[in-house]
Amino acid sequence: MKIGIYGYGNLGRGVEYALRQNEDMELFGIFTRRNPETVKPVFESTKVYSAADITKYKENIDVLILCGGSATDLPEMTPALARDFNVIDSFDTHADIPKHFAAVDAAAKDGKNIAVISVGWDPGMFSLNRLYANAILPDGKDYTFWGKGVSQGHSDAIRRIEGVADARQYTCPVESALESVRNGENPELTTREKHTRLCYVVAKEGADKAKIEQEIKTMPKYFSDYDTTVNFITQEELDKNHTGIPHGGFVIRTGKTGENNSSSHVIEYSLKLDSNPEFTASVLVAYARAAYRMHMRGDVGCKTVFDIAPADLSIKSHEQIIAEML
Amino acid sequence: MKIGIYGYGNLGRGVEYALRQNEDMELFGIFTRRNPETVKPVFESTKVYSAADITKYKENIDVLILCGGSATDLPEMTPALARDFNVIDSFDTHADIPKHFAAVDAAAKDGKNIAVISVGWDPGMFSLNRLYANAILPDGKDYTFWGKGVSQGHSDAIRRIEGVADARQYTCPVESALESVRNGENPELTTREKHTRLCYVVAKEGADKAKIEQEIKTMPKYFSDYDTTVNFITQEELDKNHTGIPHGGFVIRTGKTGENNSSSHVIEYSLKLDSNPEFTASVLVAYARAAYRMHMRGDVGCKTVFDIAPADLSIKSHEQIIAEML
Repeated sequence: MKIGIYGYGNLGRGVEYALRQNEDMELFGIFTRRNPETVKPVFESTKVYSAADITKYKENIDVLILCGGSATDLPEMTPALARDFNVIDSFDTHADIPKHFAAVDAAAKDGKNIAVISVGWDPGMFSLNRLYANAILPDGKDYTFWGKGVSQGHSDAIRRIEGVADARQYTCPVESALESVRNGENPELTTREKHTRLCYVVAKEGADKAKIEQEIKTMPKYFSDYDTTVNFITQEELDKNHTGIPHGGFVIRTGKTGENNSSSHVIEYSLKLDSNPEFTASVLVAYARAAYRMHMRGDVGCKTVFDIAPADLSIKSHEQIIAEML
Repeated sequence: MKIGIYGYGNLGRGVEYALRQNEDMELFGIFTRRNPETVKPVFESTKVYSAADITKYKENIDVLILCGGSATDLPEMTPALARDFNVIDSFDTHADIPKHFAAVDAAAKDGKNIAVISVGWDPGMFSLNRLYANAILPDGKDYTFWGKGVSQGHSDAIRRIEGVADARQYTCPVESALESVRNGENPELTTREKHTRLCYVVAKEGADKAKIEQEIKTMPKYFSDYDTTVNFITQEELDKNHTGIPHGGFVIRTGKTGENNSSSHVIEYSLKLDSNPEFTASVLVAYARAAYRMHMRGDVGCKTVFDIAPADLSIKSHEQIIAEML
């Protein structure tokens, strides 16, 4: 199947790499809103087109993977493109998913295409694990922990403070809270008890570090509800030790069954990712396969990870997965 | 929907409990091959019927949950009943699944029913996690560890040794091997390096304990490839501390992405279960819901966990799961 990449940042680059790992897929090209000549793909053979020309290639692309941002790109991009293409996005503004679903569903049905939204790890694999675990253990309690990982939003928030040259923020799960959940203690956890925030900050020359630290720690919404640690380091240290975009987390459900609910069970799913965008890209690519297969079967409309049978994600035949993986 | 339980041991009892946790389901009754009058269900209101009469109730039962064993019961039972009922089983002889699938598929299609086979945690939830992780990280390595949990087969094997009155065997994952896998070291692990076997044995009066221990440790297939610990205890201790049927395990896939495969990722799914049969029963009940919905949509034939969209497992509406769980 022929895949298009629409939008080319970290996520788009991740998709370009991931497609090479899937021999049933071929990259048709990258579509960019920038001047195509200024975009340098990771592989020399990759073609770059102008996003403005996308509809010319309607017959050449089986699935278009949308690599725009959730804040402003995808709410417009996904419905617009779903009229002409099978599309996948990683829309991750949880509260706005129902609205996005409705807009994309109407467009995809109009164009008789498949659109899969909110694909990645959260939303995505974490959502799947929440759903499976809830279906199996109706009488239970859910926990999601994130990290250790880089939060771009929090890093950006620190960078906007006066006197800050650069910054990187890590969200860290509180190990003792995780242990309590795993032990089936069903703790009620406050925001502060679940995660800590670890900041590496490069101060501009002559900046008031105490003031910067104070501003970070008291920043509403971003930091004030957390135990926050601020470390001042040099730009060299930041560039050397903090350029990666690791992330991950834990989805845990504890539940009870049996006589007087006396049996406890713990279902845990966790991810430890060196590269958040590359992993998200790998999930997008697997769901592109499913989108293609659903489209070939004549299915239309907006889908989520909840609506897609796992078999459709695998490169292997049904006979193989039953013999080798069940 | 109305559910029937066919076969009534630990698993059947687990289903009887689990149905009470799912308000969209109702237990029609238990079907037993024993004299129904000798079967005591956990809830007084539960009706017990003779398995011989099952076809009389064809119109009263939406899904029949088969709680027989994989060795001899299910290979006959599931195809036979799939002609008249939507059925679910927990067939767990991995090597024979393709053959079982084919037999059940023919019968279910013949009867225009849905049959879901090999539902539980392994096969079942572990299989699902192997498939998802393989689809996302094509360039990687799979690991499955079991335990700590009771193996009935190994416990039975010990009980057959001369001089043994009773026994309980626990399969335990080797913690250092788990850590190595989680650290992305991609170890090649022998059978001995992955699991140990821990045995609690009640010897008959006057029995030769050294000889029993030797016989256990050298038993081919069951114990000789493992580091095995044998503890002799009294029947009282066994009854007090080892009557539960806990189990669980870990499915881990490590994989690489990106430039020169330089990013490593670890996907881990784990279960810690106080009661193996009650948890398996809970998975069966969730898939009974999916079977019913697929049947109502006119779908027919044999399905596995790979073929069922997660949304079909949830008691919640599509709107709810998208708003609350994605």
